[in-house]
Amino acid sequence: MASISKARPLTRDSVLQAHELVKPHIHHTPVQTNTTLSTLASTPQSPDALKGTQWEGQLPAKPKIKLFFKCENFQRIGAFKVRGAFHAVKRLIEEQGIEEVRRRGVVTHSSGNHAQALALAAKTFSIPAHIVMPKISTPSKIAGTAAQGAQIHFSGSTSQEREAVVNEVIQETGATLVPPYDHPDIILGQGTMAIELERQVKELIRGDGILGVHSNDKGLDAVIAPCGGGGMLSGNAIALHGTGVRVFGAEPSFQGADDARRGVEAGKRIDTVKTLTIADGLRTPLGDYTWKIISDTRYVAGLYAVTEDQIRAAMRLVLERMKCFVEPSSVVGLATILYNEDFRSMVEKEAGDEGWNIGVVFSGGNTTIEAIMKIFASVPENQAERQEGTISKDGSRVAENVAG
Amino acid sequence: MASISKARPLTRDSVLQAHELVKPHIHHTPVQTNTTLSTLASTPQSPDALKGTQWEGQLPAKPKIKLFFKCENFQRIGAFKVRGAFHAVKRLIEEQGIEEVRRRGVVTHSSGNHAQALALAAKTFSIPAHIVMPKISTPSKIAGTAAQGAQIHFSGSTSQEREAVVNEVIQETGATLVPPYDHPDIILGQGTMAIELERQVKELIRGDGILGVHSNDKGLDAVIAPCGGGGMLSGNAIALHGTGVRVFGAEPSFQGADDARRGVEAGKRIDTVKTLTIADGLRTPLGDYTWKIISDTRYVAGLYAVTEDQIRAAMRLVLERMKCFVEPSSVVGLATILYNEDFRSMVEKEAGDEGWNIGVVFSGGNTTIEAIMKIFASVPENQAERQEGTISKDGSRVAENVAG
Repeated sequence: MASISKARPLTRDSVLQAHELVKPHIHHTPVQTNTTLSTLASTPQSPDALKGTQWEGQLPAKPKIKLFFKCENFQRIGAFKVRGAFHAVKRLIEEQGIEEVRRRGVVTHSSGNHAQALALAAKTFSIPAHIVMPKISTPSKIAGTAAQGAQIHFSGSTSQEREAVVNEVIQETGATLVPPYDHPDIILGQGTMAIELERQVKELIRGDGILGVHSNDKGLDAVIAPCGGGGMLSGNAIALHGTGVRVFGAEPSFQGADDARRGVEAGKRIDTVKTLTIADGLRTPLGDYTWKIISDTRYVAGLYAVTEDQIRAAMRLVLERMKCFVEPSSVVGLATILYNEDFRSMVEKEAGDEGWNIGVVFSGGNTTIEAIMKIFASVPENQAERQEGTISKDGSRVAENVAG
Repeated sequence: MASISKARPLTRDSVLQAHELVKPHIHHTPVQTNTTLSTLASTPQSPDALKGTQWEGQLPAKPKIKLFFKCENFQRIGAFKVRGAFHAVKRLIEEQGIEEVRRRGVVTHSSGNHAQALALAAKTFSIPAHIVMPKISTPSKIAGTAAQGAQIHFSGSTSQEREAVVNEVIQETGATLVPPYDHPDIILGQGTMAIELERQVKELIRGDGILGVHSNDKGLDAVIAPCGGGGMLSGNAIALHGTGVRVFGAEPSFQGADDARRGVEAGKRIDTVKTLTIADGLRTPLGDYTWKIISDTRYVAGLYAVTEDQIRAAMRLVLERMKCFVEPSSVVGLATILYNEDFRSMVEKEAGDEGWNIGVVFSGGNTTIEAIMKIFASVPENQAERQEGTISKDGSRVAENVAG
């Protein structure tokens, strides 16, 4: 695989340097808090909600949690991917010089947010961008990428077919491959969000703007981020390494989409995943670089999985209560915090009475009303009564019907 | 009707005083900008989009517009109504003393945001709140209001039946009626958002955070707000009176929901409206106070109406592009700016080459995924291709299929 650039070491310092490089080109996305959701996270689930799960019969955990949401759904192109794409392109320019990069161009294979992010970064510096997309991609995604001025090359749907077209483009144009997640420059770029989040939480806590369930002034205790290919989770882990802030990953469990969690448990990377989880940004297995970081507990303190129903329930809360439009992949971290008893009892034990300030990454907001209609179409009416957010008089949550 | 308090004069100065009273109890909601939507507003509609409308055959207007969205969907209880409710309650306390208000309590009839807002304001000062709701209200709304500690009284659905129950409550408890919109203290409270909006837009323009289609440093030129009962529109108009900022109102046209516009045109208030517009917060006719202000062109410079399809199209843009979760009533102002040629050609003429900075009020975000599914269920697939936001190569908008 053609390398983007001489890789910088995977350290917090490199992430800080990456942040300086990308800052002029990205939005400084807001960190939001929400009293209702922090209260809910700090309220035990009802014993009924645990029926039929591996936690049936256990006493529901009572962690104390204050939530801070890093809203990358408000990022340019609607997702965090511009961080890595701009970093990779600017590093390329540093290495090769702008003229050479403009002569050669950049190429990637993606039908999603990375394609649009790379197209935008390339356009910003008048660099030709070649995007290899499966013929069956949705017209709106093709149009969105073409609108950024990229040249679209169609391929078949298998990874071999896509790579064949990528190689053709490279041979014809000399373009440099910018992979979607498994490259140091991408990982370092995605990690820049953690630098902002860390500072923003400190500012918020120092300020008087926080209404919360408990208060302290120690800054972030932990961050939880979605894990697909793992570029963003790795980046966060590197950015926060040595700071004392723990980093956790969250995945969907549907059809084995929790490949990172299962791989770490088995001590061996799982390199193929076939899942149709509604969290469609998280259907990808880890790569070489990301596996190395994510399987190292000095970087990622734990991985957790959530069911499709739990993702739906968390998404409903974010839309209806926070008034924040997110894609399903964004909410696996919040779903873990609200519904995964392994995570919740770990926090109760580790954080004790003081509680934890947890940063939750909302990775993006690129979904449509039609996609949301499909995701919720199968939810029966009685479940649609939305009891996920209701706290009963005895101080426990009303049964949620979101058990796995 | 029992008066809340000795009314303050309906002036900007009273709104500034109201702001001091309510500030400690409400969120200082953000003002957001969005390059895509400002560009779209500054791009002429395609001639095709005007087919079948009253503007068919006209040359589409070319206004220059920069948009600033006041996000009251992020307000406490999810809507602007807490501003008026807190103001009314604090004025009552000033007049009667807290002990007397606690002895008597407050009462209103509403199944919507005002009920929750008054319940919250009352709870904050340990004042009993009585909410009269139709028996047929949705269970989640009843639960939401009861969760604020209010006492619910059920009534029939007609206004006579509701008023009868209100009068019973007043006779039994001595509670003071806090009407949802037609009272000076409510109007002055709602107007406080305009004070914030004005300052926030100046700060944003002074800062470097704005990416826009054109730039200037003159602050707000105009504000457009939804008009139902008219409390919020009147409040904004009073708050900005004498500042040079023009205030416009927007309504749905469906089944005559544009009662304010029609009333002003006919020179006579329309006091009954029967409409099932999807903008369900705007099904109410104007009251005495709000009619007096809104029909006075020194306060409200113009009223405009939009179709259900235009509301849907604007709502899709706000959700999918801005990633902002709003209820349909919130977007009638944006729909006017994007699709109403009377408004657009007025702006082109008045604003000229310099363009206008327009503040757009998002009134609330209290809707559900199920409600959104119903609203968009009837939209045919081809329309769902979302061309509302696409700009063609000749610089005009792609036909929108959102004509009336």
